[in-house]
Amino acid sequence: MKTVILIGAQGKMGQAALSGLGKHKVITASRSGEGCDFQVDITSRESIERLYQNVGSFDAVVNTAGFCEYAPFGEMSDEQWQTTIQSKLMGQINLVNIGLNYINQGGSFTLISGILNIKPIPLAIADATTSGAIDTFVQCVAHELPRGIRINVVNPTVLEEAWDVYGEMMPGFQPVPGALVGKAFERSVDGFITGQVLYVDA
Amino acid sequence: MKTVILIGAQGKMGQAALSGLGKHKVITASRSGEGCDFQVDITSRESIERLYQNVGSFDAVVNTAGFCEYAPFGEMSDEQWQTTIQSKLMGQINLVNIGLNYINQGGSFTLISGILNIKPIPLAIADATTSGAIDTFVQCVAHELPRGIRINVVNPTVLEEAWDVYGEMMPGFQPVPGALVGKAFERSVDGFITGQVLYVDA
Repeated sequence: MKTVILIGAQGKMGQAALSGLGKHKVITASRSGEGCDFQVDITSRESIERLYQNVGSFDAVVNTAGFCEYAPFGEMSDEQWQTTIQSKLMGQINLVNIGLNYINQGGSFTLISGILNIKPIPLAIADATTSGAIDTFVQCVAHELPRGIRINVVNPTVLEEAWDVYGEMMPGFQPVPGALVGKAFERSVDGFITGQVLYVDA
Repeated sequence: MKTVILIGAQGKMGQAALSGLGKHKVITASRSGEGCDFQVDITSRESIERLYQNVGSFDAVVNTAGFCEYAPFGEMSDEQWQTTIQSKLMGQINLVNIGLNYINQGGSFTLISGILNIKPIPLAIADATTSGAIDTFVQCVAHELPRGIRINVVNPTVLEEAWDVYGEMMPGFQPVPGALVGKAFERSVDGFITGQVLYVDA
């Protein structure tokens, strides 16, 4: 049994991840902290640092949080880009960067991207760009993590559980059950793979 | 003959691009402005806006500028990440975003990334991550550019002309002549392709 910190636990993706972590001790966190063990804002290095200090010993970090702005490229403001980058890109990079000082030997990080970098749709350029950045980051940084620490990223298509929200903007996409996405998180946490993009698509 | 704005013109990559733009009217720009027609700082939206206003009518933007910090991941500060992101990622996105208001119908943007997102090496995690982001951005944003405007990105390996600087940190890499990289810029500016990553590697 591993101690796993699950960030974004209350969201639909967090619940999907949770479904794959049944055999572990899961410590939950989210931006609001509601219904979770801890509160964390991944856009703040201080907040991340505090989370890790409060948790103490842990073996894995699973992140399903990352805010994206959606707009046509021509109408997207610099501020909307910055908001997306500071959360979905730098937030996740900082989870790893700071987490390296706290995570147990042989631990793992599992980040989140999303299929829109492979299957682009209108309004999602900031989501796609930061997903491409995170996928690349994970594939490259895996080579320099110390103490047998691994890193992977789950790149899922839309969840069945979220189809009522996103279905309208994603014509022709086949949603997948959260339980299938949970398998990808399980494969990352419980396997020996590293530097991989785990696509979950149909 | 097209009017092409070449940014980063004095650098080795700029000179490589220039070698492929021989049949066009090339207007040069760089951060210092030395030896160029115009000065531009791609990290400033105001500076980009001023460049386009000063140039007037143009058909293509070719960018070879983009600053990256190099360090081991564990030692890279948040500030080093931000500096890299604001230049190589947001600087290039803003060149396109603002340029759309000025570029002629049927025009093109050609951005720059670099092979380290495909062939990772020590110290280059910020370079690799932003290259992956720019490659993704170009592949996705191409679908929503108006007025027949195209976009591509050249993703080159190290230049023969820069091997004395970078060779030491890139063991096992085969440098390519700048003239070959120039062909990729030419193919982007003079072709009909869009949304493509033009790898130049050996």
